[in-house]
Amino acid sequence: MKITFCCTDTKAEPWLAGLRAALPEALVELWQPGAAPADYAVVWAPPQAFLDEQPQLKALFNIGAGVDALMLLRLPPGAQVVRLDDAGMSVQMAEYVCHAVIRHFREFDGYEADVKQGKWSYRKPRARADFPVGVMGLGVLGERVARALRVFEFPVMGWSRSPKALDDVRCFAGPAQFDDFLAASRVLVNLLPLTPETEGILNRATLSRLKPGGYLINVARGAHLVDEDLIALLDSGQLAGATLDVFRTEPLPAGHPFWTHPKITVTPHTSARTLREESIAQIAGKIATLERGEPIAGIVDPARGY
Amino acid sequence: MKITFCCTDTKAEPWLAGLRAALPEALVELWQPGAAPADYAVVWAPPQAFLDEQPQLKALFNIGAGVDALMLLRLPPGAQVVRLDDAGMSVQMAEYVCHAVIRHFREFDGYEADVKQGKWSYRKPRARADFPVGVMGLGVLGERVARALRVFEFPVMGWSRSPKALDDVRCFAGPAQFDDFLAASRVLVNLLPLTPETEGILNRATLSRLKPGGYLINVARGAHLVDEDLIALLDSGQLAGATLDVFRTEPLPAGHPFWTHPKITVTPHTSARTLREESIAQIAGKIATLERGEPIAGIVDPARGY
Repeated sequence: MKITFCCTDTKAEPWLAGLRAALPEALVELWQPGAAPADYAVVWAPPQAFLDEQPQLKALFNIGAGVDALMLLRLPPGAQVVRLDDAGMSVQMAEYVCHAVIRHFREFDGYEADVKQGKWSYRKPRARADFPVGVMGLGVLGERVARALRVFEFPVMGWSRSPKALDDVRCFAGPAQFDDFLAASRVLVNLLPLTPETEGILNRATLSRLKPGGYLINVARGAHLVDEDLIALLDSGQLAGATLDVFRTEPLPAGHPFWTHPKITVTPHTSARTLREESIAQIAGKIATLERGEPIAGIVDPARGY
Repeated sequence: MKITFCCTDTKAEPWLAGLRAALPEALVELWQPGAAPADYAVVWAPPQAFLDEQPQLKALFNIGAGVDALMLLRLPPGAQVVRLDDAGMSVQMAEYVCHAVIRHFREFDGYEADVKQGKWSYRKPRARADFPVGVMGLGVLGERVARALRVFEFPVMGWSRSPKALDDVRCFAGPAQFDDFLAASRVLVNLLPLTPETEGILNRATLSRLKPGGYLINVARGAHLVDEDLIALLDSGQLAGATLDVFRTEPLPAGHPFWTHPKITVTPHTSARTLREESIAQIAGKIATLERGEPIAGIVDPARGY
């Protein structure tokens, strides 16, 4: 069995060594143009030329939660695309989102600014009932985030394509219930996959439906958001602020207004990082399962796009 | 039945109205020197003169989690001191501590400083196994904090005076196990009651026992900490940082080095605020229970001091 590794922007050696250690019977190689085709591929943003050379590929393992970039390419006909379905990412996402929600709710940015001026300030406690959080996308990451927010007793809503049921989370589903979901939310957390249907879903019309003083946390993809609509809603006072981890172009270009907007917190796509050891263990386990002819989790439905 | 209210630094009217609504059969009054003695008192930092005028008091309800200031006074002989045992404070404490731990672990201060300089930075993910969190004090607040930290999969230790057992938390007890507890912790969260035994417990000797790169979060009382020892350990690089919500003198005096220390985050005693509605409901419920001759939770043991 041959496994090929083709991940741009990733140091290959530790991945190759880890995959070799986890699957000692496999031949694990860094892809080079013209190399013999492989049975399995571990990829991140591979070039089309790589895919065109893999006629016998059984599965492509994407080392990230979002497969949107991969789904834009022509894939080998027999190959299934497999997402990492957790591999230590969901706990990071829960951390990132809870930190952002708590920081906003508890006004820690405001206290910090006061302390910088040597000011011991008093702020009236806010009621968490006034800060319902809506989570868009209830996959592995969204469900984990929703459950973590409940630990802090926020009212939590969820919205997903197909109906879901989660304890203590008010679930909405499909386009018909999207407006009701938005109207019930004050803090909006985006964890949707990026597909043609969800591109630009965070825009003036949708973000305007949030409760007054709305707050956006985008941890999915930059292309979900219409940048200029967010800025207009922040500047008009309709939205209170935003925490953004993902952008249409990454790194966020110099001079982009998000860098310096006083109501926007920017982080450099760090909300849920791919953890090498956990990912290698998961991919090796799935390859072994496929080799035994058994089903695995995380296979992408090309029609849905995730 | 008469209830008297004597809370410094607190707007009395909403408390009086709330207590009257919750206990319509009671006479609820704001204390004035020379007033007729009451059966129950709701207090925060009352003067000794107030206590000296209350010979028939059955219970003193302290509107905060810490009763250290009250325990320094001469109390009426028949009066029990009752702490608020949650009243919405434990969820706030869990929020505050999780926010501080996540912020430190995920290096969000560092990212923020980079973004301010227009820098899209990369930092190697840290392993949460390297950030065991030790919680000092496993009462209502400490237990809630420990459980919330487990949601984010940190290794969590607890230390308390008497032995406790908590799922997924490694528990230490008593002076004999204190050094082992400290040596197993990298992030130290202080939630102890302030008593003669715990005053100054956060000092050069104890804080030096933490794992390298130790981090202190003090959300109990300022007098638990020897201020100059913390500064020396931060300046020598032995400790990585601290988040402090409580201080020996509050408001923190102008010119105190904590205000501007680059490794210290200061907040103005805001980690867990007394929430009026929840507190009134709890106090009213306990008075009704006592009037029926039944036992209540939260009675302070004068020998222990909490």
